[in-house]
Amino acid sequence: MSYYSPSIEKLIESFERLPSIGHKTATRLAFHMLDLNQEETNEFINSIVQAKKNLKYCSKCYNISDTDPCQICSNPKRDKSVICVVEDVKDIIAMEKAHEFKGVYHVLHGSISPMNGIGPDDIKIKELLNRLQEDVPVKEVIIATNPRVEGEATAIYLSKLIKPMGIKVTRIAHGIPVGGDLEYTDEITLMKALEGRREI
Amino acid sequence: MSYYSPSIEKLIESFERLPSIGHKTATRLAFHMLDLNQEETNEFINSIVQAKKNLKYCSKCYNISDTDPCQICSNPKRDKSVICVVEDVKDIIAMEKAHEFKGVYHVLHGSISPMNGIGPDDIKIKELLNRLQEDVPVKEVIIATNPRVEGEATAIYLSKLIKPMGIKVTRIAHGIPVGGDLEYTDEITLMKALEGRREI
Repeated sequence: MSYYSPSIEKLIESFERLPSIGHKTATRLAFHMLDLNQEETNEFINSIVQAKKNLKYCSKCYNISDTDPCQICSNPKRDKSVICVVEDVKDIIAMEKAHEFKGVYHVLHGSISPMNGIGPDDIKIKELLNRLQEDVPVKEVIIATNPRVEGEATAIYLSKLIKPMGIKVTRIAHGIPVGGDLEYTDEITLMKALEGRREI
Repeated sequence: MSYYSPSIEKLIESFERLPSIGHKTATRLAFHMLDLNQEETNEFINSIVQAKKNLKYCSKCYNISDTDPCQICSNPKRDKSVICVVEDVKDIIAMEKAHEFKGVYHVLHGSISPMNGIGPDDIKIKELLNRLQEDVPVKEVIIATNPRVEGEATAIYLSKLIKPMGIKVTRIAHGIPVGGDLEYTDEITLMKALEGRREI
């Protein structure tokens, strides 16, 4: 049985459909929306409408951006000869926050996952290969897919395709996170950390 | 420094302004919005627009409702001679879920709180008194404001105004919640529980 008025119920359901929002939070958010004045409501709705309208994929790297090419691809200071391949747009932000990488990106929008019916043609691999053939000569492709089964499979698949083109292919290092604890590190990470050991 | 495109930044900020939503959740919600198709986006936006347009205060009890009078006030099965006074619209839902109360409500939209500059004229007390004088004869007013300083003050204030009108004024019981633990109950609740003890 529903206790709220239909319009409130519908608003709560709308918020409940968002990820990581349960019924209680949805109710709180719905009542918050009702408390907003007209201007604040318009601002909220506009930010959604504008984002949906303005954002597009960068035709080079498939980042989401207001401009095409995106801010990174159109930045003359970025080294176009090094491409970092990531699974998701949010991975670009993670990399950018590290302030270490000065090249450009390529977003695959997923990883090869036969279990979920995602093959090489379903993610932006063809687009990456085209880019390597047509664009500025590329010296290195850094594969920064996630260190899970799918990400690893994608990395191996990509390296087999790209190496024959005479381009250096590297994989980001796996190991114990800084500030991490040996005691609580899983065995596969420890194995990778040992494999990747370096002389000091 | 901002790493996202302006439209994404703005969308994230919009979600961040909502209560109990931090930066990480806001980012997740923003990207979820971008993943929605046009129809799903319209549905979300519409639920906000419709709620803002349709919802109004019930002119009798000040509940928020699509209709005036609200579903409860216009229900012929509800006993109009018993009014339960609550601070907030959400308190009505809490009461309704208990399936115990068959009367009608009055929402004060706050409680008297001199510390926050909220006096008796800032909440719907005048409207309650008018209702008691003009409407169906009322036998009992149950005051269900929150058991905090402000709610108690409001309860006492109301009872002093209503009792002289020859109407019975009651206060909901305070005590240890069902399933609660004596050990972890604060002293004031315990004191109230002792005060309100009943013969068994």
